[in-house]
Amino acid sequence: PSDTHRQRALARQSQLTKPAGSLGELENVAVRLAALQGTDTPNAEQVQIAVFAGDHGVCDEGISLFPQAVTAQMIANFVTGGAAISVMARQLGAALEVINTGTVCAPPLSAGVIDEQVAAGTANLARESAMDAQQLAAALAAGDRSAARALERGCQLFIAGEMGIGNTTSASALACALLAEHPTHLTGPGTGLDRQGVQHKAAIIQQALARHYQQHDDDATPLTCLQSLGGFEIAAITGALIGCAARGIPVLVDGFIVSVAALCAVQLRPALSCWLLFAHRSREPGHQRILDALEATPLLDLGMRLGEGSGAAVAVPLIRSACALHNQMATFADAGVSNADG
Amino acid sequence: PSDTHRQRALARQSQLTKPAGSLGELENVAVRLAALQGTDTPNAEQVQIAVFAGDHGVCDEGISLFPQAVTAQMIANFVTGGAAISVMARQLGAALEVINTGTVCAPPLSAGVIDEQVAAGTANLARESAMDAQQLAAALAAGDRSAARALERGCQLFIAGEMGIGNTTSASALACALLAEHPTHLTGPGTGLDRQGVQHKAAIIQQALARHYQQHDDDATPLTCLQSLGGFEIAAITGALIGCAARGIPVLVDGFIVSVAALCAVQLRPALSCWLLFAHRSREPGHQRILDALEATPLLDLGMRLGEGSGAAVAVPLIRSACALHNQMATFADAGVSNADG
Repeated sequence: PSDTHRQRALARQSQLTKPAGSLGELENVAVRLAALQGTDTPNAEQVQIAVFAGDHGVCDEGISLFPQAVTAQMIANFVTGGAAISVMARQLGAALEVINTGTVCAPPLSAGVIDEQVAAGTANLARESAMDAQQLAAALAAGDRSAARALERGCQLFIAGEMGIGNTTSASALACALLAEHPTHLTGPGTGLDRQGVQHKAAIIQQALARHYQQHDDDATPLTCLQSLGGFEIAAITGALIGCAARGIPVLVDGFIVSVAALCAVQLRPALSCWLLFAHRSREPGHQRILDALEATPLLDLGMRLGEGSGAAVAVPLIRSACALHNQMATFADAGVSNADG
Repeated sequence: PSDTHRQRALARQSQLTKPAGSLGELENVAVRLAALQGTDTPNAEQVQIAVFAGDHGVCDEGISLFPQAVTAQMIANFVTGGAAISVMARQLGAALEVINTGTVCAPPLSAGVIDEQVAAGTANLARESAMDAQQLAAALAAGDRSAARALERGCQLFIAGEMGIGNTTSASALACALLAEHPTHLTGPGTGLDRQGVQHKAAIIQQALARHYQQHDDDATPLTCLQSLGGFEIAAITGALIGCAARGIPVLVDGFIVSVAALCAVQLRPALSCWLLFAHRSREPGHQRILDALEATPLLDLGMRLGEGSGAAVAVPLIRSACALHNQMATFADAGVSNADG
């Protein structure tokens, strides 16, 4: 990030024809993006959305309302344009790529899907490590390749999305391990479990954590947590965020699951956090705890809990508005408007 | 509003390829707009933004940091394209009209301004009625004509904005009278008063309320409050909202001042409230009390306090996203995706 451009952006904001500070968070967004992009005219027109899909062995424990086949079916829905994130990508004029990190079923329609399949879903994290070290490395590398493609395409703002039946279970377990929290604090309904379902899910996560800590004892690191409890798509997103920050691409973080991947990425690379903007507060109850750990205040709070990167996509126009206001508003001097006498 | 279309929109939302309710407020917005527009495909492409400007005699009491000349200077800034709302109108492809309801100074550039000048600013509401009955009627009619123009242009969503140095003082006084609140609860910094400035402003409002209640005793009505304490632009917005509801045009309500006009409109015509969507929570501290009185939950909370309709404009893409998702997402049946088994 460029401190010179940050200072210049702050100075410009104070000269625009509005009471100082009256655009609230939109001013902060414009100033941050100016510093991250190293420019006087921050811009979020070129948006790259990468949706990472993967299956989860922990579905054997009955922690989701939806059958695992839905992951592959939704991959097809992403590329044929009927999913929420497909609609939003069109609405934004954003590039959308769909990356299969490993599903149990083959997608019914896989043309246009980027094949990064690590395995046919992870192992059941309640009973064994979700992946082995090579699989973890493969998933992280798949994410990094997505960041590399984003750079090639001139991406100004990167969004990672996810799809994977069972992945709130994996994300909650991973967050518990990364934050040393109890599952009851970070387990929620996901796609719509009732109270009993949430209790069962928390118990499965507790079982996974007991196994994980027994295996790693005191030597758990963010990477061992990710390998033991993560999903392929969550590991890939972690790799993508690290890859974006390394390449100087600002990231707009979606909801619960992407935030857990961001937490893992920040624990691995603390300097990365300045590259992250946060789009929305998910209705998934554990999200606030993750946001607190990341010292993040998201732009939106609309009760969304869909995933796919949809919450981030919905926030993109706010960032574009912040840029347009910063770049196009007249100054007091330009417009011949008197400034405050206070 | 059409209950048939509301029911059909709800049914469609339940069939789209997402967990039920997972788009949160965006689902509510789409369903409400479908009912208001009486359509299966709600739409907010045709947005009309009407900015009403006017001056306030209460500026004699030193309640604003900015000189009154700024109202006219900003009118010129609106039409030349340098103001926040001008930038946002371009960003949205929205029609912007600027209506002068009465300024102390002549705008330096008035080409493109709709002349609805009632007088060269209101009288000083701390010492006398802000306007007389004829002036009130003229301001309300100016707002209604704006709603009529919106209908002619095929407007699908109407935004009223305001500009007027001193108008948070008028709006706070009016809200106190409409809600029987004490000024300390509804008086804030406006464009940026310090604590002492806010106390002085509250004392001036208290003086205005004492005069108003003495004059009207027990027979105060929303219209007598508006005449006694309102601004021409606030009365015009009240007229515009009544005119929009009467013509079946949904309104996206901006921040503090427009919400006070909305409160006045709803007290005059309670059935009007279903036509109002609320864009954002202003940083002006009294706004929450007004929103509570209107039983409104706004979409955004970005710490904005600029006025001009800017907060509403920033929320328009959320409404467009809600419509696009509603209209364009695939159903479970269309996409061959399995639904929840729970």
